[in-house]
This record gives sequence, C-alpha cells and structure tokens, in this order.
Amino acid sequence: MVGEHAIHNMRVIPLKDAVVPITLRAVQFGFSTYESLRIIEGKVVHLEDHLNRLEHSCKGIGLVHPFTHDQIASSVHLLIQVDAIEQASLRIQIYGGEDPQLFVTATTILKYPESQYTQGVGAISYYGERLFPSCKTGNLLLNYLAVEEAKRQQCFEAVLVDRTGRVLEGTRSNFFALKGNSLYTASDDEVLLGITRDRVLKAAVQLGLTVVYEAPYLEDLVAGGYEQAFISATSMAAMPLATLDGRPFKAPFTKILAIRDLVRSWELQD
Amino acid sequence: MVGEHAIHNMRVIPLKDAVVPITLRAVQFGFSTYESLRIIEGKVVHLEDHLNRLEHSCKGIGLVHPFTHDQIASSVHLLIQVDAIEQASLRIQIYGGEDPQLFVTATTILKYPESQYTQGVGAISYYGERLFPSCKTGNLLLNYLAVEEAKRQQCFEAVLVDRTGRVLEGTRSNFFALKGNSLYTASDDEVLLGITRDRVLKAAVQLGLTVVYEAPYLEDLVAGGYEQAFISATSMAAMPLATLDGRPFKAPFTKILAIRDLVRSWELQD
Repeated sequence: MVGEHAIHNMRVIPLKDAVVPITLRAVQFGFSTYESLRIIEGKVVHLEDHLNRLEHSCKGIGLVHPFTHDQIASSVHLLIQVDAIEQASLRIQIYGGEDPQLFVTATTILKYPESQYTQGVGAISYYGERLFPSCKTGNLLLNYLAVEEAKRQQCFEAVLVDRTGRVLEGTRSNFFALKGNSLYTASDDEVLLGITRDRVLKAAVQLGLTVVYEAPYLEDLVAGGYEQAFISATSMAAMPLATLDGRPFKAPFTKILAIRDLVRSWELQD
Repeated sequence: MVGEHAIHNMRVIPLKDAVVPITLRAVQFGFSTYESLRIIEGKVVHLEDHLNRLEHSCKGIGLVHPFTHDQIASSVHLLIQVDAIEQASLRIQIYGGEDPQLFVTATTILKYPESQYTQGVGAISYYGERLFPSCKTGNLLLNYLAVEEAKRQQCFEAVLVDRTGRVLEGTRSNFFALKGNSLYTASDDEVLLGITRDRVLKAAVQLGLTVVYEAPYLEDLVAGGYEQAFISATSMAAMPLATLDGRPFKAPFTKILAIRDLVRSWELQD
C-alpha cells in the first residue's frame, strides 16, 4: 500500500522511520536535492530524465553523494515492489554533507479533476527569484510562501515574477503564454528545466506552434497581451490558467488541452 | 551532560529522538525559524532578545505557532536543568505548518582561541542576497554554500555581497569596517538584526566611534579604503578579519578587541 514503507539508503524502512535529525547541518540549511515523479500502471514515468536532473541539481549545489543512478532506480523499484504500488506520486530526496542520505517515499497520486483542465485554474503573481533556478533543492521558502499566498486568494498556483517584471515560472510548474501561433516561455537558463516542460515544447512544435524563448511581462499578461496562459508540471502535464491576478483568460483551451493530451500520451513510452 | 536530551514541544526527549519526518512540508520547504544562543555559567545570554527576534522571524514569514515566550523560555531552562548544563551553544527551532513543532537542543559551546582574536581570521566574498534578511529561517542554502567555499579556501567566514557590490553581512555574522574614527555597517533593514550587532554598535559609541550606516563596497575594502574590518555573532562577539579575499588588514586590532571585551562584559548582565 502506498505510504506503508520508504527507502532509506537502499533499504526498506517503515515510512514512520523516514526522519532526519534536526541537528544535521544539511537539514538545518536545506542542503538537499529532490525529484517528484509519477508512477502509473506500476511504471515510473521518465525515470532516467528525473535521475539526470537529480544529478544536475546535486552538481549545481556541489552536493556530493555516493548513490549511483542504478542504486537510486533500484530503490524506486524496490519501493514500488514492497508496497505493490500501481499509481503514486513519488519523491526522491538526497541530503548532503558528511553522511549523505537517500530517501524514496510515495504518496497518493496527485490528480486534478477534468473540470480544472476545461475551465482552468486561478493563479496569482508573486515577486521573487529562486537561488538556483535550474536545481531542485531544499531552499524552497519562496515557493512555500508564494503558494500559501495563492491559497489564501483561493488560487491554485503562484507564478514568480523577477526584478524586471517578467513571469519566469510557477512555484511548482513552468509557465507558458500563447499569442496567435506562438508559445512564449522563459529561456532554459532562467528556470527549472522541467521534464514536462521539455515535452510541452515538443508537443507545441508537433501541433504547429512556434516556440519563442521570451518570458512574458506580468504587465502585458494582465493587460491582455496574450490570449491564454498555462503551467506545466509532472503532476499536471499542461494546466490552463483561468485567471492571473484576477485577469480572466477565455476557455475553451483547445491548444493547451491538445498539448496536455500529447504529453500524457508519451508518459508510458520511454 | 550537553547533548543527552532535547526538548520537543516542552517535553524532554532523548536527543536521538529530535527528528522530523522528511515527508513534512515544513521540512521539505525550510518553513522554519531558529535562534542560536549561548549558555555561560548556567545562564542563557540575552534570552529575551532572542525570543523577540524569534517572534520577529516567525512574523516575517507568516509562521504561526502556539508557543509563548514563557513556554519557549521554560523549555530552554528545562534543558539546562535536565542536562545540568553549565555552558553550551543552544538552538531553538520552530517548524511551521499544520502541526508546528518546537525543538531546543544544545551542543558543546562554540569558542575560538584567543590567537584568532589577536591575529584575525580569513574571509572571502560571496555574491548572493538572503531572501528575508532580517529573519532567521531554514532557507539557508546560500549561507551553507558560501561557508563551504570559505572552508575550501581555508577561511573562517564568507561575507555576502549584494548585486550592487556592497558587503552586507557574513553568513553567520554581521559585518563592520573601520575607517579613522568611523564604524561602517549596513543599515538595519538590509541585514540580520544581530543581537550582538546591537551591542557592538553600543560599545563602539561608548568607545568614541561614530557609527555610519553605509555598507562598504567590496571594491573599496580590497583596495585598502578601510583600515580594519570585523564580524560579530553570538559565538564570536567581535572577531577581527586578518584578510578579505586575500587582502590583509593589519594587527593589532585594538579597537575591535575593546569592542569585543565590552560586548562580552554585558553577557551576564540582563
């Protein structure tokens, strides 16, 4: 059953024992990296891509650890086997420092109702820049506070606006805007290199859109300069925005849902 | 004995049980606050100031918790009593979220040899800005990486340089530079409101120095525009810099050590 066990340094442990000492420097300082994955039909979606990005995150912050791709992949499969997991959201987490630790845990799969896809979800803007945009680390206070503010405003996500007023990405998603036949998004070096983002860009091209690597300005977005906007993430694929700071985007989200369908169709392929 | 027990939500537990689940959002996102204190002669130094700053940090990031100053103070005193602590470095930590948790732990007191004070310590510069400068939170990756880089360069501390080239503070300290009869330091709203920093400023005035709230530019510091520089923290009081990015400052550090002595003399007074 999902959530019965966890993996710690390649060994099966009860989930309740998946703990870290609060005296550990890596815990106190957020010197950690992670990946969020999807398991569907008992299969891990895009595992190799996630392992590569985990390695990228570790390199990005100088987190040295002894865990090989094979060991991490085996840990993931061990958890799937021991808890007989068919579908779940999975998290791989590595704490760095003198005694690096690897954890793999699973929770009930994050799924969103179809109505959110057809009607879109609300988003707010939030000013702030991530420290290492291309790395998934434990330095997440900005993301936490932005999402909490979104919830307070009955919204689904917060999109992060940089000091120049550009919308770079969401707190747990990448960000895209549509204008005519063009899809706008921030350039690779400014945001998290989303594994789903890659697929969204590929799907957009297959659907005849032109990708423009320019992050939209918040000012233009709320002034109606773009017809539609959406966010992407492992759990969401592509999710249309119904509003941004209260400014509505009009359904139907035909292009966005076509992108989502293509992205989802590739989940069981590699 | 220091480190035998910890306090968790006002209760005594073995230190080894001072752990947090890695599945807790507050742990994953660094949604936490903390204070580092000194116990000398069985007495907590400037406890009320630390409790006030802890409250300030919690307010700054919207961390709501049920622990009163009295409860936190009692927890500190409980730990001192149960482990018969005469001297120690103490850490109060609060994790936020749905089920806030309070921890108090103690470790062997951080002390520096007198030779470091008379000869000074090495520092490097590191570019980066803290998210909430006035709050002590779990969002500390920048601090971690800066200190690691300092260690690699056989240095004691890294000072953080902002996007305009000004040295605002150290990773675990406040920063000061001396020129003639003036003491330069960043303004209150740009840095951690150090409890020792307050005392340093008071001591400087008592010793006839003029405080100038202007953060020195790194460029000026390494070009010899200031005669001396030092850092302050609970564990150090005032610690002279021997070098910054290899640029030497000349001993004797008479004024700095006079400030240190005054600051230390106030530790057992309130």
